Amino acid sequence: MSRNRVEVCFSPNLFPLYTEGYEVVVVIDVLRATSAMCAGFANGVKSIIPVSTVEEAKAYQEKGFIAAAEREGKIVEGFDFGNSPYSYMTEEVKGKEIALSTTNGTRAINIAKSNGATVVIGSLSNLEAVVNWLKNAKKDTLLLASGWKDKFNLEDTICAGAIAKQLLESGEFYSENDSTIASRFLYESAESNYFGFLKASSHRRRLRKLKLNKDIHYCLTPNTTDVVPVLVDGRLILEN
Amino acid sequence: MSRNRVEVCFSPNLFPLYTEGYEVVVVIDVLRATSAMCAGFANGVKSIIPVSTVEEAKAYQEKGFIAAAEREGKIVEGFDFGNSPYSYMTEEVKGKEIALSTTNGTRAINIAKSNGATVVIGSLSNLEAVVNWLKNAKKDTLLLASGWKDKFNLEDTICAGAIAKQLLESGEFYSENDSTIASRFLYESAESNYFGFLKASSHRRRLRKLKLNKDIHYCLTPNTTDVVPVLVDGRLILEN
Repeated sequence: MSRNRVEVCFSPNLFPLYTEGYEVVVVIDVLRATSAMCAGFANGVKSIIPVSTVEEAKAYQEKGFIAAAEREGKIVEGFDFGNSPYSYMTEEVKGKEIALSTTNGTRAINIAKSNGATVVIGSLSNLEAVVNWLKNAKKDTLLLASGWKDKFNLEDTICAGAIAKQLLESGEFYSENDSTIASRFLYESAESNYFGFLKASSHRRRLRKLKLNKDIHYCLTPNTTDVVPVLVDGRLILEN
Repeated sequence: MSRNRVEVCFSPNLFPLYTEGYEVVVVIDVLRATSAMCAGFANGVKSIIPVSTVEEAKAYQEKGFIAAAEREGKIVEGFDFGNSPYSYMTEEVKGKEIALSTTNGTRAINIAKSNGATVVIGSLSNLEAVVNWLKNAKKDTLLLASGWKDKFNLEDTICAGAIAKQLLESGEFYSENDSTIASRFLYESAESNYFGFLKASSHRRRLRKLKLNKDIHYCLTPNTTDVVPVLVDGRLILEN
């Protein structure tokens, strides 16, 4: 049996360098877009349409969709909510379609789909579920950290490292890039205490200023759901 | 006294994101360009002209300069040598001007100078000397890892982390980016055993295949020289 490749890309800005023909791209935005998406699907949301711009989200809103938009950690004026996971756990959103635009995560999704790969949503919330999905898929896989405005961030890298470690330890995957080695190493160092490890991270500081400690706690708690949202025809859904 | 900023940029590809007006950029290409440059200046080389393309290096050769070019870890055909530090320790190069083009390092230098910052050469070879130079300069400083073909690499990141750690611990510098936190952490983990830590790194594997273990050993040995090459009018020189 031939092994599949797994690598970590630290930023959407570096995505064009990963030209090795990855068939699956896992988009990771732990604080908070992909964690919120997982919370939504766990709560029965029907689909999420990730759009890059606030204008696109507004256009969906005008067509009657629930629309969500976040910039700089805050809900954009005129939208139903932003990317707090708790906004996706209400009765109101069950069975609904949501159009969503966020600072980093939805943009990363739209960059990830550009080369025709299957796009999957990863977070700490669905860590084990994503790992199992990838082991079953048996495809060359790129783990794409959404970062913060194209810069490296710690929480997405640690989540990518957690996924990479489990795939590599299964013996069914290999990696060649230093970014993958570094991610795994950072994850192993953080594993016993995410909160302490990420205490100094730039985005946690940013969110703490916005009084989002409850969100942070949710997003950094692993394995709260087994959903694996997949992008099909521009919509994130749960496959049967 | 106001503190200065220090951050780490993982790749020349991400350099345009660092728009905070850094006055000094330290270019790091541990394996092997910036280590070789330090070896050359320690041996009395007069100046090094870093050029991005092999064609430019060839043009200098035709004008009578000693010319060096490396691609994919090998000396380009027709050139005097590549970027092995040992090539820069001979009697032949003392007092001479050398035109040099390498896969990653010289390109990073030319990207670094594009915004008008002072460009300084960093490596493990001149680690303490660069740290002291930066402490004296008291400027906002970006540590630019040359990477491998624009991808993240471990050895440059660890060197950047070593510099950042010392500047931050001096109390005269601060940082805000997660890349700086991660670099420092990776350095602290590698500090007691660079060779072991980097054993699995992609570029070490690449160079080992080319039988360059002697070069690797030289490049990973810290503080073998106190030279700090600085780019002045397109030439790397030692300032008085």
